[in-house]
Amino acid sequence: MPSSVAGPEIERLIQLLGRLPGLGPRSARRAALQLIRRKEQLLTPLASAMAEARDKIVVCSSCGNVDTSDPCTICRDERRDPSILVVVEDVADLWALERAGAIRARYHVLGGVLSAIDGRRPEDLNLATLAARVAEGSIGEVILALNATVDGQTTAHYITDLLAAQGVKVTRLAHGVPVGGELDYLDEGTLAAALKSRTTF
Amino acid sequence: MPSSVAGPEIERLIQLLGRLPGLGPRSARRAALQLIRRKEQLLTPLASAMAEARDKIVVCSSCGNVDTSDPCTICRDERRDPSILVVVEDVADLWALERAGAIRARYHVLGGVLSAIDGRRPEDLNLATLAARVAEGSIGEVILALNATVDGQTTAHYITDLLAAQGVKVTRLAHGVPVGGELDYLDEGTLAAALKSRTTF
Repeated sequence: MPSSVAGPEIERLIQLLGRLPGLGPRSARRAALQLIRRKEQLLTPLASAMAEARDKIVVCSSCGNVDTSDPCTICRDERRDPSILVVVEDVADLWALERAGAIRARYHVLGGVLSAIDGRRPEDLNLATLAARVAEGSIGEVILALNATVDGQTTAHYITDLLAAQGVKVTRLAHGVPVGGELDYLDEGTLAAALKSRTTF
Repeated sequence: MPSSVAGPEIERLIQLLGRLPGLGPRSARRAALQLIRRKEQLLTPLASAMAEARDKIVVCSSCGNVDTSDPCTICRDERRDPSILVVVEDVADLWALERAGAIRARYHVLGGVLSAIDGRRPEDLNLATLAARVAEGSIGEVILALNATVDGQTTAHYITDLLAAQGVKVTRLAHGVPVGGELDYLDEGTLAAALKSRTTF
């Protein structure tokens, strides 16, 4: 939007909205217009939700989760199994696992995976805090819930080596056919893994 | 996100972001995480840009444009041709025409088009202000820059009838092949219109 047409305030709003993942320049303009049109129902509450998030949200110094308290709600939750630690790349993965509701354990958020291309080295990830948590002695199993990508698996191997001396059990997520998935659409690697790890019916 | 995992602040942020056009529940979560991760570079400036928009942006009482002043920058711009009025459905269309930079005129934003399905009747659009602006007498041509949809064209016909008594020239955008468009992908209606309105080379 040329600043001669709309004020610089609108232009700045569009520019910032366009930096959100999933919004390009065109959808940022649509989002800005929607915000302006629905001032009371959307713009005002969103502006205050953002101000509140800015003021209150902190990163948990223990696990790297984001929350309004440090330690976070999960780290303080006494009902969770303290002997299992689930290692994830990102808070989004933690949320996905919590939505699945399949495990009541604690997490450790790496904040990324090792990547030669993106130049992310071990010291860029929360690995020292992971080693320190495991060294404390109360954790019996570390589940590596990392993406099944080259970088994810490289990171998994690195962490396995890192924790080898500590005698903790290190496991990883199973490979296989996604629930509801059609064989026809799966790659050979997944099919081979699903066959190899077949279970009795 | 269950509120047991992240605080209600994060949940509320995700919920409000999900109401922006173009963001579903999944991308709203990604956007929220991106905002939290990039607090200084993104969340803080966006929160203040929204607060500023909320406080400053008004709808122009003359043309229906959104701006930080009323009358808006375009209505106050003396260098624009006061004899041409471009009628658009929406502020997004006004922005698109301004980006094209093809005309230096004033606008009239209808705030929608007539629609039997959505129940939008003439009194729901800014038609009374349009008739009043034309009745003032300084406008010689009204360009109907409405979408080439059934509702857009119905609205165009309605406005033509509405302004018929006032002796103003009413025109509409040409139909034809989009610049860079491939004939192969165009519908028969567009091709027929492009042939009918063919020009000498």
